[in-house]
Amino acid sequence: MTVGTLVLLRHGQSEWNEKNLFTGWVDVPLSDTGEQEARRGGELLAEAGLLPDVLHTSLLRRAIATANLALDVCDRHWIPVRRDWRLNERHYGALQGKDKKQTLEEYGEEQFQIWRRSYDTPPPPIDPDDEYAQTGDPRYADLGDAMPRTECLADVLARLLPYWTEAVVPDLTAGRTVLVAAHGNSLRAVVKHLDGVDDATIAGLNIPTGIPLRYDLEAAGDDLRPTNPGGTYLDPDAAKDAIAAVANQGR
Amino acid sequence: MTVGTLVLLRHGQSEWNEKNLFTGWVDVPLSDTGEQEARRGGELLAEAGLLPDVLHTSLLRRAIATANLALDVCDRHWIPVRRDWRLNERHYGALQGKDKKQTLEEYGEEQFQIWRRSYDTPPPPIDPDDEYAQTGDPRYADLGDAMPRTECLADVLARLLPYWTEAVVPDLTAGRTVLVAAHGNSLRAVVKHLDGVDDATIAGLNIPTGIPLRYDLEAAGDDLRPTNPGGTYLDPDAAKDAIAAVANQGR
Repeated sequence: MTVGTLVLLRHGQSEWNEKNLFTGWVDVPLSDTGEQEARRGGELLAEAGLLPDVLHTSLLRRAIATANLALDVCDRHWIPVRRDWRLNERHYGALQGKDKKQTLEEYGEEQFQIWRRSYDTPPPPIDPDDEYAQTGDPRYADLGDAMPRTECLADVLARLLPYWTEAVVPDLTAGRTVLVAAHGNSLRAVVKHLDGVDDATIAGLNIPTGIPLRYDLEAAGDDLRPTNPGGTYLDPDAAKDAIAAVANQGR
Repeated sequence: MTVGTLVLLRHGQSEWNEKNLFTGWVDVPLSDTGEQEARRGGELLAEAGLLPDVLHTSLLRRAIATANLALDVCDRHWIPVRRDWRLNERHYGALQGKDKKQTLEEYGEEQFQIWRRSYDTPPPPIDPDDEYAQTGDPRYADLGDAMPRTECLADVLARLLPYWTEAVVPDLTAGRTVLVAAHGNSLRAVVKHLDGVDDATIAGLNIPTGIPLRYDLEAAGDDLRPTNPGGTYLDPDAAKDAIAAVANQGR
């Protein structure tokens, strides 16, 4: 029996996506294209009658703005909100602020793909004095030793799961439609967990921006599992095109 | 001893303010001018170094959008949020959707001012079938008999106080800087309570849009009282001009 419905929404294009820079925890705004993608996401929710009862976001403005724009379009701007650093994008370590194409040329295809896609090899850690480290950022003041300096996808999953279990699952088991507005890698971690994707396969799994991905969930012990494995994109054709485009990033 | 700091922010101009219509609970968006006012509010917060730790809003998009825009400008988009109908604008009853100037001409100056400014005389209740009643609106589904059909300012204060006591005061006594983004009349109710304004005087008290109003609060029994009675506008000159303009509405 379905208990709750999860809607994953990856933020639209940011100003640094547009410039092809590694972003990670750097808090860059959406581009105009990204704002349009977010509004389109809201239209898709409205057209599907898939209206969120509660929102969870990261602490980064590209996810927050995406949710705000999408929810305003589908007339759900008033729902309760929770934000948590555990939904943040993967911390890209020393690559934050670096040009993707330049990094590819400098380090070669193999190293580039390991940093981008390896499940358990993080990039080199960022220097705390780097302009793109978040040293002293008040939103992370309480993290202490949990503050990452770099992350692989395995690290993202490990820090995301406590929030999934303590904050998202209770909303779902209460029967709510839960919108999680977040990032390419934090959403890949959710999908890996929900669909039981293995460590090798997750490397090739891309989630397109701005297209809501719906999971209907049923109870499975203390956790939940999808009745529609892999989820259902609200605009399947657009999702297919976008997935192909993401796979070609950095080329 | 000051325990916490309260910042009141009245939403910027809405599309219906611009058209001079009674709005109340009708959920109209900000005008372009209103969006600019909201961003200016965020600049004033940043310039004063008055950075909110937590946000409380109504369930209406003009207050929600004002907070989103202001917080984005002062880099506080990531703070925790609570929304509650108890912070909504006064319900304007059968006047919702009516032209203010036309209402003034139709009913005369005395009746018009009673409806606009009397502390305890509400306008006639709205018909549940009226296009500007919120009958069936999912955000109010849990209200039951508490759902207003019209309100005077005394009604607003009565429904606001439980939220003040249960949700806002605990944030303040925890030492936080608390932003309340709301409406002309819900904020007048807060000010009446905090400053102990009498029923006659509150009629002449206007709060300008988009200019943060700061109260430093100290403990007073189970409640709080301002160490700066009347509060402090972050842009006193602009506040003075705006207060004069609001007083002339409907003329």
